[in-house]
Amino acid sequence: MPAEQSTMPRGVDTDLYLEIQQFYAAQMQALDGGDATGWAETFTEDGVFATNADSSATCGRAAIAQAAHAAAARLAEEGLVQRHWLGMLDARPGPDGGVRVRYYALVIRTPGGGDPVIWRSCAGADELVRHDGGWLVRERRITRDDVG
Amino acid sequence: MPAEQSTMPRGVDTDLYLEIQQFYAAQMQALDGGDATGWAETFTEDGVFATNADSSATCGRAAIAQAAHAAAARLAEEGLVQRHWLGMLDARPGPDGGVRVRYYALVIRTPGGGDPVIWRSCAGADELVRHDGGWLVRERRITRDDVG
Amino acid sequence: MPAEQSTMPRGVDTDLYLEIQQFYAAQMQALDGGDATGWAETFTEDGVFATNADSSATCGRAAIAQAAHAAAARLAEEGLVQRHWLGMLDARPGPDGGVRVRYYALVIRTPGGGDPVIWRSCAGADELVRHDGGWLVRERRITRDDVG
Repeated sequence: MPAEQSTMPRGVDTDLYLEIQQFYAAQMQALDGGDATGWAETFTEDGVFATNADSSATCGRAAIAQAAHAAAARLAEEGLVQRHWLGMLDARPGPDGGVRVRYYALVIRTPGGGDPVIWRSCAGADELVRHDGGWLVRERRITRDDVG
Repeated sequence: MPAEQSTMPRGVDTDLYLEIQQFYAAQMQALDGGDATGWAETFTEDGVFATNADSSATCGRAAIAQAAHAAAARLAEEGLVQRHWLGMLDARPGPDGGVRVRYYALVIRTPGGGDPVIWRSCAGADELVRHDGGWLVRERRITRDDVG
Repeated sequence: MPAEQSTMPRGVDTDLYLEIQQFYAAQMQALDGGDATGWAETFTEDGVFATNADSSATCGRAAIAQAAHAAAARLAEEGLVQRHWLGMLDARPGPDGGVRVRYYALVIRTPGGGDPVIWRSCAGADELVRHDGGWLVRERRITRDDVG
């Protein structure tokens, strides 16, 4: 790749982009598989999870784990299988060696014996930081498309 | 990777594949974000956008930008959020250092306060060309699955 | 990348991950394009395709091709276009130089003149093996979300 001007800002390099893609795949499989603790450990200790549907964010691993436990219990009670798809990742270098990622997300829900539906369509913006050679989410901001 | 025979034709190399994936992510985020000018600038000056739903193609950046402006205005009027997902990229070397990409596309629409739906399912075929170290679309042919 | 401990198990390296992603893209385009023979050839001669909806698996290329031929004929008869999306790939080194991949899958169906729907939402687990510099599926286990 020549170091010329592109029509669009350059993203992160190949290895980093794929690291992040794999991080999201494993993170979502933890969440959808009901591993609330494993999911919470993909955030920093003081990690923030915010959406445009709630005026207050969920802050810190303990609260993030608790919210995931509660959500998994509700899904089990309703007999729903839920899967998060993250895609269209646009990753850019952030401050202090971190990465800012903008992406799209779909939440698919399937009832036992029934048809899958798209429960939510969203955009996401993450601030990722290095930790022990891997990545952690320091801040995740989700914008639900159905919330004006 | 040994240079042996594969059961399928080889695609492009790793860095190139990811460059294209990132190009599409940024391109779709421009389109869905209502940046019609930025979207048009991801095509060549004489770029072509064709679908199997229209007998005539949209040709040239000016026409492509105008079509995107009009589409964004209609969506805003109807209170819809629209997101394009491109995936299942199969990229192969093309003529003159270009790349031919075949992919799948979904268009997700969400009304304010309502449930997301898949508005369109499509296959796409692009001819991409190098420009200033990045990529531009010279020709995009979209095949909508609902159009016979 | 420092060789430190990550909060999640490390996946495969960048080139390998992308090889697999491209393999799946080409494999699904073969299946959805009605190329039952080409699809079957992406499995080993004794390849296994199993789902939680059938107590018996489909074993061997000939049976896999026959099942795909029959499915393509049914879709054509019903006037449906079908597309498989595989995503959220979590790839890990397997035994004998192979790779184990866990992923999500959506099957989108569109009737002529109608709206696309998600026909199936699934999780998949593949055992891939090297063959002539490419990859083949030795075993694929699909878990449909609607089947309890």
